[in-house]
Amino acid sequence: MIPTKAILLLSCTDTLGVVSRISHFIFERGGNIIDLDQHVDQEEHRFFMRVEWSLESFSIPASDLHEAFTPLAKEFKADWKIELNGKKKTKVAIFVSKYSHCMIDLLWRKEAGEIDCEFPVIISNHPDLEHIAKNHQIPFELIPVNKENKAEQEKKEVELLKKHKIDLVVLARYMQILSESFTAEFPNQIINIHHSFLPAFIGGNPYKQAQDRGVKIIGATSHYATKDLDEGPIIQQDVTGVSHRDSLNDLVCKGRDLERIVLSRAVKLHLEHRILVYGKKTIVFEK
Amino acid sequence: MIPTKAILLLSCTDTLGVVSRISHFIFERGGNIIDLDQHVDQEEHRFFMRVEWSLESFSIPASDLHEAFTPLAKEFKADWKIELNGKKKTKVAIFVSKYSHCMIDLLWRKEAGEIDCEFPVIISNHPDLEHIAKNHQIPFELIPVNKENKAEQEKKEVELLKKHKIDLVVLARYMQILSESFTAEFPNQIINIHHSFLPAFIGGNPYKQAQDRGVKIIGATSHYATKDLDEGPIIQQDVTGVSHRDSLNDLVCKGRDLERIVLSRAVKLHLEHRILVYGKKTIVFEK
Amino acid sequence: MIPTKAILLLSCTDTLGVVSRISHFIFERGGNIIDLDQHVDQEEHRFFMRVEWSLESFSIPASDLHEAFTPLAKEFKADWKIELNGKKKTKVAIFVSKYSHCMIDLLWRKEAGEIDCEFPVIISNHPDLEHIAKNHQIPFELIPVNKENKAEQEKKEVELLKKHKIDLVVLARYMQILSESFTAEFPNQIINIHHSFLPAFIGGNPYKQAQDRGVKIIGATSHYATKDLDEGPIIQQDVTGVSHRDSLNDLVCKGRDLERIVLSRAVKLHLEHRILVYGKKTIVFEK
Amino acid sequence: MIPTKAILLLSCTDTLGVVSRISHFIFERGGNIIDLDQHVDQEEHRFFMRVEWSLESFSIPASDLHEAFTPLAKEFKADWKIELNGKKKTKVAIFVSKYSHCMIDLLWRKEAGEIDCEFPVIISNHPDLEHIAKNHQIPFELIPVNKENKAEQEKKEVELLKKHKIDLVVLARYMQILSESFTAEFPNQIINIHHSFLPAFIGGNPYKQAQDRGVKIIGATSHYATKDLDEGPIIQQDVTGVSHRDSLNDLVCKGRDLERIVLSRAVKLHLEHRILVYGKKTIVFEK
Repeated sequence: MIPTKAILLLSCTDTLGVVSRISHFIFERGGNIIDLDQHVDQEEHRFFMRVEWSLESFSIPASDLHEAFTPLAKEFKADWKIELNGKKKTKVAIFVSKYSHCMIDLLWRKEAGEIDCEFPVIISNHPDLEHIAKNHQIPFELIPVNKENKAEQEKKEVELLKKHKIDLVVLARYMQILSESFTAEFPNQIINIHHSFLPAFIGGNPYKQAQDRGVKIIGATSHYATKDLDEGPIIQQDVTGVSHRDSLNDLVCKGRDLERIVLSRAVKLHLEHRILVYGKKTIVFEK
Repeated sequence: MIPTKAILLLSCTDTLGVVSRISHFIFERGGNIIDLDQHVDQEEHRFFMRVEWSLESFSIPASDLHEAFTPLAKEFKADWKIELNGKKKTKVAIFVSKYSHCMIDLLWRKEAGEIDCEFPVIISNHPDLEHIAKNHQIPFELIPVNKENKAEQEKKEVELLKKHKIDLVVLARYMQILSESFTAEFPNQIINIHHSFLPAFIGGNPYKQAQDRGVKIIGATSHYATKDLDEGPIIQQDVTGVSHRDSLNDLVCKGRDLERIVLSRAVKLHLEHRILVYGKKTIVFEK
Repeated sequence: MIPTKAILLLSCTDTLGVVSRISHFIFERGGNIIDLDQHVDQEEHRFFMRVEWSLESFSIPASDLHEAFTPLAKEFKADWKIELNGKKKTKVAIFVSKYSHCMIDLLWRKEAGEIDCEFPVIISNHPDLEHIAKNHQIPFELIPVNKENKAEQEKKEVELLKKHKIDLVVLARYMQILSESFTAEFPNQIINIHHSFLPAFIGGNPYKQAQDRGVKIIGATSHYATKDLDEGPIIQQDVTGVSHRDSLNDLVCKGRDLERIVLSRAVKLHLEHRILVYGKKTIVFEK
Repeated sequence: MIPTKAILLLSCTDTLGVVSRISHFIFERGGNIIDLDQHVDQEEHRFFMRVEWSLESFSIPASDLHEAFTPLAKEFKADWKIELNGKKKTKVAIFVSKYSHCMIDLLWRKEAGEIDCEFPVIISNHPDLEHIAKNHQIPFELIPVNKENKAEQEKKEVELLKKHKIDLVVLARYMQILSESFTAEFPNQIINIHHSFLPAFIGGNPYKQAQDRGVKIIGATSHYATKDLDEGPIIQQDVTGVSHRDSLNDLVCKGRDLERIVLSRAVKLHLEHRILVYGKKTIVFEK
């Protein structure tokens, strides 16, 4: 498929003329800007931009775009990437354990056309959800993990991800902590859902922690996974009210409705190249 | 005070190069873009933009800016305006009747530095809130209105607004319907708060209507006032949950918390030149 | 299965001693109240109550409960019913057309144990979702409807519902309007989801209506279906923010997340006997 | 003023017949229950109840009520209290420093009839808000606090509170930490507002902490003050969305809208005797 749109994600030190020079680059080649969003971090003097333009009347082939833009990017000493829609779909691996809600939500959104990607493989440390993968004709790889075999099994997982040329890993309530070497292999390419409004209730059993503290609001947080558990850059959060009437099970049920939506939103934002990670934080150019 | 920032609000038919040409206009005169937001209405093929830039190293005086930009604007057949901060504060007239919450909220936000404007006059058809105006050293003009004297009293109001060089009228739960000739005098310069989530419950006593219908959510809507009552372009809306336990008075109380916040937010957005009206709708370039 | 809990739903004219007499009725038979919620409509002088108690040490058999309570209910001239858990599961028929999200959500919640019911049949006027019914081993009945055959097809539907002894019909984005005779057959036993925050945007294509009006919030409403389209007693509502950036398709996507949650919540409340209909409104004894 | 309503707040070990016995106590004396809410903590086997009834046709004088109920309360070994409306208004002392928004909100709500209490005194460690106290004719006591004089100044504060017979202390963004001896003097009678969604961002400068962590939601929490800073029983929480565009000052402004509402709601719930503290948590019988 021939790409019809290009998306540039860029950050650099804030200087005069970045918007002008980049929009001119697009304009003089016949590109029509569909969406441009930018942000200046006044404290860090850092400039961030996302620009999406139509390649319909673009004067150079999409395949030459990267090379053509390089000199300008160098001038601004920018961190940048250009994504072309339609070149190939992003390949997403879902990791699950026993809870199905996040996975079902992702699968349904793909089928409904809400998110645009491929799911070449589902990896799980438990066999429970295999039938759902089967119903959706997606290979299901069972890789049980325990303390003894963890390093070895992670190696298998990484091999599988490489074999399937995976671009993004989604931890859809995957109940294993990934090792530092695993996360280092996929920087800003692993999205996790944590079932609390981080940084409250880091670690295990956040709903129990929430109940014990007597909070009146619970939440869920999607973030990029890094070596520091539950400390990665936050992408999306949402919350809902609770009361003394809610049992632990009620919190779990209410939380599930947050988790699947907060995770799916993060995946969609990532797939649409709307997220820039800077330090421990994200710039999310939401629609 | 010498302006330090300029804000351009512009809309035109969507064509190639608008962003490029305008950002170049700013760049070649030494302006540093602080914030740029744009939107293309794909159905209407209409382009909307708000761009804010620093005049610190700008090569032409702020007073020449309007003239300098005119040729470019003409080329794009744009609707546009340029606002300069610091030239003069926007002069806002508050209209009230008996409810104080919206007015108190606006006055407090000005004093807290949240909104940047002047309140040269408060106009009311009832004497009840005069003491609050007094506490804030703002002239309070009592202009009682009834069916017989309405036209005449509106004339007085318009004269007062002109005398005080008012730029914006805020109807802070003002319980009189303005005539068509009044609203025509101040196009997109009158902000009203309606105590329902429009278009539900148009007209009088929306909380009673809400209770009778048994809704589980009530809301408030700020909008520009036009000749068509409760039909003007919506700026902001917010809602809150209610239940069978809420009496009519409870709805009124819950609603007040929405009204003041939804009205103040709209006023702030207007004062920061973040709203473009197009047809019956608004483009709100929120921060 | 032997019932372990009883739930009484009752409404009557507000008089002295209702709570006392009813709680005494339960106490003197050894019942332990698990949950009691009541409400007095001060304007209508009407009393509403839901009380749930354990039958563990109850001195009379569950099967005699209805008869035992009748004299007291008569004394208060009450509208009432007693539900016994475990006696039999509520039988729910899902009606769908082409959109799958609400149906998938209901099926998933049943499997996750969030709602307690049986789905003996799925009825649709389109064949599109048959595979999903199949994956869940639920009979799928295709009953296409057009202007000519409507009365006849509805008759078939009612026969199917009777055959399966259906207690509750859930219109999970079923795109046909039910006739008055159909709704009359199942009073307060048909739950519909309307894709707007009623009473705004009654009728067809509410998302288009919302976009045309330029609202900043969209919603969804679950309600009991009555002969008056979109006028039935509201059970649940929820909303989400939108902006000028949202295309019609974006509104539809955002709306789907509301629809499935608002519909499922209503079904759960109905299944747990937490809803009392009074006139055109509901008393919802939420947990 | 003769009391027209009584409110019983009670907790005890969960046993058979509590609701029945208590509602019978009220019924046999001619009391009409206006509102009854109860809760059983299934894990702790603890029963909680709030019941409000009309004294209009009550057969014993309000002044004898406490004595009359004592035997029944003893039987259940209950923690309990009975409040009579109209006997005297709750006396509330507001503590402030430099931020006015929470105080203004409380004062306005009293004047609007939303909360029912007296404000006999406002205490502050800074002189900044004296003019507001004056406008509302409330004595303003300036008690500057520093490390050296803290113990001594707290003593003065406690004396003032005793002199004014204060029932409730509201820390309306009071920027001093109260000593353990101070909080011990007023158990469950000091309500504080913390400007984060606790337990996230305990301690100083929570908005800066929130910005540094890159959260997408900020919140506010009202709670009873105990010797453990920011660890007291939570009464109310609310949140709002933020993004990378929000400067620290934007967070502070958005937070203020949460703080005043979350604090005022807690004060209202306390004044209406809707809060039961149990361990480190609250049971809030919301309307």
